[in-house]
Amino acid sequence: MGARETIQVTGHLMDSGILSRVLDDIRDYGGDFVIEEFDVGHDARDASSARITITAPDDESLQRLLMRLQTRGVNQLPHGDAAVARSDRDGVLPDGFYATTNLETQVRLAGQWHDVVNPEMDCGLVVEESATGDVRVRTVPMSDVACGMRIVVGAAGIQVTVPEPGLSTETVAAFAGDHGAERPQTVLVRQVADGMRHARAGGKRLLWVAGPGVVHAGGVPAMVTLVRAGWVDVLFAGNAMAALDIETALYGASPEGSSQPAHEHGHEHRVRAVNTIRRAGSIERAVHDGVLTRGVMHALVTSGKRFVLVGSVRDDGPLPEAHTDVIEGQRTMRGEIQDVGYCLMMATQLHAVATGSLLPASVPLVCVDINPAMVTRLADRGTGQGRGIVTDVGLFLEQLALELVADYRRD
Amino acid sequence: MGARETIQVTGHLMDSGILSRVLDDIRDYGGDFVIEEFDVGHDARDASSARITITAPDDESLQRLLMRLQTRGVNQLPHGDAAVARSDRDGVLPDGFYATTNLETQVRLAGQWHDVVNPEMDCGLVVEESATGDVRVRTVPMSDVACGMRIVVGAAGIQVTVPEPGLSTETVAAFAGDHGAERPQTVLVRQVADGMRHARAGGKRLLWVAGPGVVHAGGVPAMVTLVRAGWVDVLFAGNAMAALDIETALYGASPEGSSQPAHEHGHEHRVRAVNTIRRAGSIERAVHDGVLTRGVMHALVTSGKRFVLVGSVRDDGPLPEAHTDVIEGQRTMRGEIQDVGYCLMMATQLHAVATGSLLPASVPLVCVDINPAMVTRLADRGTGQGRGIVTDVGLFLEQLALELVADYRRD
Amino acid sequence: MGARETIQVTGHLMDSGILSRVLDDIRDYGGDFVIEEFDVGHDARDASSARITITAPDDESLQRLLMRLQTRGVNQLPHGDAAVARSDRDGVLPDGFYATTNLETQVRLAGQWHDVVNPEMDCGLVVEESATGDVRVRTVPMSDVACGMRIVVGAAGIQVTVPEPGLSTETVAAFAGDHGAERPQTVLVRQVADGMRHARAGGKRLLWVAGPGVVHAGGVPAMVTLVRAGWVDVLFAGNAMAALDIETALYGASPEGSSQPAHEHGHEHRVRAVNTIRRAGSIERAVHDGVLTRGVMHALVTSGKRFVLVGSVRDDGPLPEAHTDVIEGQRTMRGEIQDVGYCLMMATQLHAVATGSLLPASVPLVCVDINPAMVTRLADRGTGQGRGIVTDVGLFLEQLALELVADYRRD
Amino acid sequence: MGARETIQVTGHLMDSGILSRVLDDIRDYGGDFVIEEFDVGHDARDASSARITITAPDDESLQRLLMRLQTRGVNQLPHGDAAVARSDRDGVLPDGFYATTNLETQVRLAGQWHDVVNPEMDCGLVVEESATGDVRVRTVPMSDVACGMRIVVGAAGIQVTVPEPGLSTETVAAFAGDHGAERPQTVLVRQVADGMRHARAGGKRLLWVAGPGVVHAGGVPAMVTLVRAGWVDVLFAGNAMAALDIETALYGASPEGSSQPAHEHGHEHRVRAVNTIRRAGSIERAVHDGVLTRGVMHALVTSGKRFVLVGSVRDDGPLPEAHTDVIEGQRTMRGEIQDVGYCLMMATQLHAVATGSLLPASVPLVCVDINPAMVTRLADRGTGQGRGIVTDVGLFLEQLALELVADYRRD
Repeated sequence: MGARETIQVTGHLMDSGILSRVLDDIRDYGGDFVIEEFDVGHDARDASSARITITAPDDESLQRLLMRLQTRGVNQLPHGDAAVARSDRDGVLPDGFYATTNLETQVRLAGQWHDVVNPEMDCGLVVEESATGDVRVRTVPMSDVACGMRIVVGAAGIQVTVPEPGLSTETVAAFAGDHGAERPQTVLVRQVADGMRHARAGGKRLLWVAGPGVVHAGGVPAMVTLVRAGWVDVLFAGNAMAALDIETALYGASPEGSSQPAHEHGHEHRVRAVNTIRRAGSIERAVHDGVLTRGVMHALVTSGKRFVLVGSVRDDGPLPEAHTDVIEGQRTMRGEIQDVGYCLMMATQLHAVATGSLLPASVPLVCVDINPAMVTRLADRGTGQGRGIVTDVGLFLEQLALELVADYRRD
Repeated sequence: MGARETIQVTGHLMDSGILSRVLDDIRDYGGDFVIEEFDVGHDARDASSARITITAPDDESLQRLLMRLQTRGVNQLPHGDAAVARSDRDGVLPDGFYATTNLETQVRLAGQWHDVVNPEMDCGLVVEESATGDVRVRTVPMSDVACGMRIVVGAAGIQVTVPEPGLSTETVAAFAGDHGAERPQTVLVRQVADGMRHARAGGKRLLWVAGPGVVHAGGVPAMVTLVRAGWVDVLFAGNAMAALDIETALYGASPEGSSQPAHEHGHEHRVRAVNTIRRAGSIERAVHDGVLTRGVMHALVTSGKRFVLVGSVRDDGPLPEAHTDVIEGQRTMRGEIQDVGYCLMMATQLHAVATGSLLPASVPLVCVDINPAMVTRLADRGTGQGRGIVTDVGLFLEQLALELVADYRRD
Repeated sequence: MGARETIQVTGHLMDSGILSRVLDDIRDYGGDFVIEEFDVGHDARDASSARITITAPDDESLQRLLMRLQTRGVNQLPHGDAAVARSDRDGVLPDGFYATTNLETQVRLAGQWHDVVNPEMDCGLVVEESATGDVRVRTVPMSDVACGMRIVVGAAGIQVTVPEPGLSTETVAAFAGDHGAERPQTVLVRQVADGMRHARAGGKRLLWVAGPGVVHAGGVPAMVTLVRAGWVDVLFAGNAMAALDIETALYGASPEGSSQPAHEHGHEHRVRAVNTIRRAGSIERAVHDGVLTRGVMHALVTSGKRFVLVGSVRDDGPLPEAHTDVIEGQRTMRGEIQDVGYCLMMATQLHAVATGSLLPASVPLVCVDINPAMVTRLADRGTGQGRGIVTDVGLFLEQLALELVADYRRD
Repeated sequence: MGARETIQVTGHLMDSGILSRVLDDIRDYGGDFVIEEFDVGHDARDASSARITITAPDDESLQRLLMRLQTRGVNQLPHGDAAVARSDRDGVLPDGFYATTNLETQVRLAGQWHDVVNPEMDCGLVVEESATGDVRVRTVPMSDVACGMRIVVGAAGIQVTVPEPGLSTETVAAFAGDHGAERPQTVLVRQVADGMRHARAGGKRLLWVAGPGVVHAGGVPAMVTLVRAGWVDVLFAGNAMAALDIETALYGASPEGSSQPAHEHGHEHRVRAVNTIRRAGSIERAVHDGVLTRGVMHALVTSGKRFVLVGSVRDDGPLPEAHTDVIEGQRTMRGEIQDVGYCLMMATQLHAVATGSLLPASVPLVCVDINPAMVTRLADRGTGQGRGIVTDVGLFLEQLALELVADYRRD
């Protein structure tokens, strides 16, 4: 084992399970370790701290292992400066680039620590200097790399902070342990409502990510109410969700007790609905022209709220506002996550995963779906900053509207 | 093909899909058919009717096929009398016995049609004569067969009636097609509430079948409210559901936001709870003695409602009221289904399937679970008389209590 | 009811369930019907035929209903010519456009029937005339509509053919009924192998659609073997599947018994793998340069097989070959489905649904996934031309390789 | 906090996650803690050890917490003798009884440590003295408690041993983390085969627990082969599995490509099959009389292997060998688990949970099902001694037979 490095890990190491994941990582990357020092807090409220020397077969493995460990909030000791290399080609990061997490990150350059402006997963870090010599470090997605950019390489000189326990410890546990329908659901609804109130009270924006299941499950009336009452600032969705909402607005749902659910009316209704909006020029125009008179998209337009639609390979049309270029769509989403203080994901997988990567870990994130696999999938992505609730999206929205909107009554 | 018989099938043949299932059956049993006459109604409201001659390789196959077809409501023409054979051994039906459905059934004996008193699935039919010569035909489960009983054999002289469309057509469709979370859930809750109101208004009893998921999902407060308000006349459950309800009543659920759901407290709490009730002598006694002071079982006892608990191989204890002999348990359940006019199954599979077999097809039956597989499983059993709702049991009960109990408020 | 029209439906009406779905459609679109004539075949092998007069509230509803019914293979009688309107705007179909199915379709113009060249779902039909006056009718997706195109409107003069029973009847039934793991799985593997042999023997190409689950489930060795033996002509996939395959090829999977599955190595490995390929310029280049030396993508390149990768909103990178514009991606997929004679979809949802829309209904299509919901989702799309198999993708591929490649041995 | 106690926990505390679960337990039971000493091993192979003082509101809570912690392998320090109380009533344990785990357990009485003879979950511990004064401690299920028995109460003087890492660490991880279909399935099959070979080589018996899904998934030929080749010593199942196996043996499965799976033939076939066996007197008799000539039950009888069938509330019949009394059934199962060295659970939930409670934690246990929820359910029960594999049972058995039986050929 030629390469070695000493790391420091601090926090509620044992009850958060972080330490055990760190040791797993070391083994999985073919490394080994010696625990130099272990300071365990004396009582339940103390943080503990460990200093661990890691060895790996070669320096490249070691660097990759160190970068991996930073996704757990584990930092290298002693810190020197970060290394930087120039990218030699558009859209390609230099070899050995530091792959980001969405945790709060600091980079040390010339002895100074710089906060990464916009933490996001799976990006590079670009170092920029203004005319006045101010240094700024920000994430850059691979596709936005330009030749000549100065990119951080290796794991040295980088410090990552895992969110404090409190909200997030509980969150982690919820995510890890109870995506069986095992917790009183009404309590969960109330906790979500509280989280949203808290974010709004702090002047933060509320981001929703929704899939077509919201419409299928009958969640439109509740969601429209929530939009109008100011509980949705921006919606991320695919073409399918918006198209189904508009189809239902234009052609209606099946009558009660019908043997066929609304969306089965056929696809035919869907493509007609999309064509109608394309004829109008845009969803916004269709609302202003009186073509589209109800539904979630209508409520967003009339309430002056924002939405980002990004297409996918199975789309018909798509709707004029839908980005057909997915990388362009990601850029637009990135532009909308500033000041987001709470994120609610409803019945969506693709856009939930995409949003989970873009959002800083510090933003509380709740993911609601009737399918436990969806929640597991989301958990797979990150460092467990989300909370999953396996429940019926329609009834969840109904309860959430009852919580948040005083005079909400089901008609 | 040596054996042949002519059958008659009447009803909304095409839109109910019955005819296509009949033809499938014929093929699957190795038979063949000729359609002699087909009278299709002229407009959407007319019933249609077909006369079909069936051939089969031999008489035994033909008889089995004919019995199979009766599960579809297809009867033989012309009707002679039913054949009867004596059972020659306790607990064993004669060869060629007629295996029942839970549809309304009539048996022709000596030129007279007799209603089967208690339609139930997978039984034999026993013919009994009173001292005054009155003939009665009733279902008999295999285990209750006594040597010497007169049992109907073959399919001749038996007439089965499939429930009229209306409620049931819609029901069948719902069951076959949309156990995806595809229908506005609040509408479904209202339909269930209406069905329960209708049954109660008609003087019928309301049967619930519940699994531990009702407790896990936080449904206890809503269910207790419904019991007290008279919306539960009898509960069928396993030892597990009652034990979890009692455990939660005795030891409490986890505090909000705890990282561990209540039932994880350990099994240890479960066995203590069961032991406590065993010490008291019975659930009823534990309530009267003030040992058990809340929860669903408590509400049933204090409201004078009935319950039947039947054990299973994985039970601890079990609770004193739980039947450890499953056949004995079935008998007790059978005794409780008289006058049931609506059946609601919540988060249960084993007891739901058991109850579905015992209940006549004419009793509306709704099955609520977050797991689509459970619904499919139940559908597998019968002639599609149930309706499945894939949703969150906790939120469903919450909404149902809001519908049915005027002053129900979530605390 | 002001508008009326007479339709003709022929086929195995009762056992295929088509007639019951037709009557459901009529009700759902607010129409009514009278059955004018019903000719039921006399024995099990005869087709039956019905003439039905449909009424609807107004002509627009009637036209939409008639178009809907054509998705069931129901045609209008008597046939006049199809009506045609010019599109007045790029990317927008004229009002009342005929929305296509992926069934074989004919259009009558000037008394002549013309086959639609490339049946595809949810498109318009454009009528083109060559310099020599030859008329051609082909599908056009909404986004490819150009101002001035002559587009078919309404349902008159259009004839749609539902595939004959035989393969497809069985297929429909399989799809509707048994996506519970209820059929001997080895038999299903053999049927798939037979279908692929049959297609290849007929000179047809074999299309695969695969998701990352193929790699997760350990299916790479079997799939590589099948690619090399000529059982994969073209692969449709997303960036995620190709990136995971390449990541595993470059960084290896976890050792046996490791506590962490390969893909958990972190996203970090994924982005490095993608960056490596971007540096090489393309997957193909990476193979030729010796950077990528194994895996499914490597096998496709070295065997001279084709692949189409289409990106999605959650992608990192993406890989150079991945289309970032989804509409452009659809166009490329469309170009690859010529002469496809069998389609196998493995562990994929998004690309499966997309491909299902593009493929003519006449191409046998099998969809394999461990998640029953995926199969249901696909079934939702079309007229039931696919077969779903709920099983483990890894073991399925293992068995398929054993069936198709004589000397395949698990190492 | 009036009550306090010092505990000792030793092992791979951090990477096994045990310590974090211990701290969670303390909080959930309303207790608090101070870590007195923490000795962390220096390198990856060292065990660590902690001495923790726990406080709880009162002694009863403390005792319960201590008992709970023993399910994690955490023992009290210093050890005095265990306390013992006499049961005062049949079928009821004394208050404060020690509720067992299925881990290796020792009890200290009069300064001597005694091994618990048959570790089993959720029982009491009875202390028995022979005529010669030999002391024996064994588990006693609640229903077998007799008045006057000497039962251990409280947590003092009890020592529990968590299985060493190695097999079990890997097992725990597999169970906790990857019941997504994320691991190369063929590797898992091989690991199971190795486990079975190892157990048999050590002279241990192989226990199978199977549900009807084994038959539905086409696993009968593979399982029959495995029975004959000596890879099944005893089978635990319900009436349903055995009845379906016998039904298929007597009436055959559907022909290939049939639109209806075998078991749909109707329930009618099931009840006839059961009646046939009841007429024969028993399954064994039916085999000897030539009535039953194939299938899993036939193979067990002709190979002289054992089986235990325990009924449930939804059973028809049941089969003569099926225990209708579930407590009696548990007793019979208990009698069969001696010398079991490997347990394979296939497509079963109820019997899997039951067996998981009865089996000592030291027996390797693998649970195979296509439904991830089943695996989660099983994990819920114990201290994570099982391994779950989410896969297709039919293909899994096919591969297992290929691994274990040299000349196994399909068809």
